[in-house]
Parts: sequence; C-alpha cells; structure tokens
Amino acid sequence: MRVFGIDCGTEYTGWGVVEMDEVSLQRELVPVAAGAIRLDKKQKTAERLLRVHTELMALLAAYEPTVVAVEEVFFSANAKSALKLGQVRGVALMAAAASGLLVAEYAPLSIKSAVVGYGLAAKEQVQFMVARLLDLERAPEPADAADALAIAICHIHTSQTLEMQGRR
Amino acid sequence: MRVFGIDCGTEYTGWGVVEMDEVSLQRELVPVAAGAIRLDKKQKTAERLLRVHTELMALLAAYEPTVVAVEEVFFSANAKSALKLGQVRGVALMAAAASGLLVAEYAPLSIKSAVVGYGLAAKEQVQFMVARLLDLERAPEPADAADALAIAICHIHTSQTLEMQGRR
Repeated sequence: MRVFGIDCGTEYTGWGVVEMDEVSLQRELVPVAAGAIRLDKKQKTAERLLRVHTELMALLAAYEPTVVAVEEVFFSANAKSALKLGQVRGVALMAAAASGLLVAEYAPLSIKSAVVGYGLAAKEQVQFMVARLLDLERAPEPADAADALAIAICHIHTSQTLEMQGRR
Repeated sequence: MRVFGIDCGTEYTGWGVVEMDEVSLQRELVPVAAGAIRLDKKQKTAERLLRVHTELMALLAAYEPTVVAVEEVFFSANAKSALKLGQVRGVALMAAAASGLLVAEYAPLSIKSAVVGYGLAAKEQVQFMVARLLDLERAPEPADAADALAIAICHIHTSQTLEMQGRR
C-alpha cells in the first residue's frame, strides 16, 4: 500500500508519500517522498489554484499511490478562511478523482492519535513522531510536508487496524 | 465581449453566457446560453468536484468567452458551508485559469445594483430583470442559471461604465 497524504493550506499545501512494506514481516513504514507546494501571493487566486492542481496531478502520476488521504476540516475559525481553504481543498480532492484514486478523510484527532497516540498532541510532537516512525533524522520541512506524512501514516495504521479486525 | 458567469453552489452551480453586441449601435445584451450543473449527492465529494470542473471546462471550450465572472463571497453563514462552497469555487476558478481566461469578481451588492439598480433587491427581482434585460420570456431555470446570467450582465455593465469613464 502506498499512501499520498495531502495537507491543504492557503499558503503551503504539504504532500507526503508513505509506503507500507507488505513483504517485510515487520510491515515497516517506508518514507518515499515529501514536500510542499508554496503558493505565490502575487499570483491571482485562479492561477494559484491551477498551480496546486497541476503540481498535485504531476506528483500523483509520478508516485503512483494506491490511495489519497486528506484531513477532515472542522472549523472554529472564520468563514472567510474556510472558503479560501475550501478552494485549495477542492482542487486537491479533484486531482485525486482525476487520477482515478479514492480519497480517505481523517479527523485531526485521529491523525494525532495514530501518530502520537494522543489526540490532543502538540504540532511539534506530531513532527517528532513522524520522523521517528519513518526513521528519518528529523521531520521534513516545511511542517506542512511532515503533516502530510502524518495523514498518510494515519491511513496506513487505520487500514491495518481494520484488517486485523477482519473488516478489510 | 462574451462573458461566462458562474454562480457556484454546493447543490447547483449555475452558468450563463451573455454577449455584448458591439456592432449594433444600441450595444445590446445578447443571451447565448445558460444552465446549471446539478451535483449528485450520492457521489463522493471528489467525484462531484471533478464533474463540476469537467463540465465547466467543456462549456468554456464550447462557448469561447473572453472573460469569466464570478460572485465574491461574503459570508455570514457558518464555516462548514463556507468550506464546502470554497471547494466548488476552487475548481471553478481553476477551470477559468486552465482555459487561459481572466476572472472578474463582483460583490453580491454590485451584481444586484447592475441588474436591478438596487443593491438590496430580492432574488425574484434579479430574475425578473435578467429576463427583461436579455429579452427572454421568463428567467431561465433553475434560479442558479439566472443568477449566473446576472453576474455576466454585471461584468458587461461594469466594463461599459469603466470604458465611458475612459479607464479602459
């Protein structure tokens, strides 16, 4: 299983690819790649959104994941920022569908629980654990790339749990 | 000038094409086409967004507008609905950029002012005036299609005003 995690944002959209090595008996998590698409504030919104979409399409074609995982969004922030985030999220979800991939959504609480073991963990703890679980010297930067890897790891853990429970 | 108006929505996304006949001395508004993309609630969000994008890309290629006009969004509603609307708006704006078109945004108040002459006009008044300005027997349905035409008319009126003021 190869998971492409996306952490949507209006400034940086992080992405990270994690593979579950099914052959090894330990079923190891293997980091494949991670990065972030930085949006140029000087560009018009429509151009920026096209850029996010084009880059994600290229990354999905290059890394050939089996599934895409994104964060569910629960907002306490204002509607204006929700609309802007929604615009980025829309082109990201669409890129997954255009690549013929299913999208799995995970609540922030589930992602933190899967990675740190504690749903209310701090951002730094998530990054520390991402590096540790993927056997990296340090968490990839920017933080959005590490967050995208955390989403991918969450999907792998969730799938394993469901599998062990005989539900998959 | 041929304007493609888009009225983004999570259930229906209306679209409408209006042309300004530059040859006629009266500079008439000519209705070209209008309709709405209805989203299937049974489909997954990513699939729905892909559908909106694919249909808009086909419509933009078919009607070859010179510009795309959309409504600016000012929200008093909750963040959850703003996020959902943002997702649709994102793929719509991206379709314009992918078609090489500029996007003009108009506030709801400006659209109503341009069509009805009164910024706080009721939805029914907008529809009545759209039919009248475009010399149609009645406003196109669903209402989202008429709203998209109103956005296109607003762009034409605004451009004319700017032109008369020598700013274009």
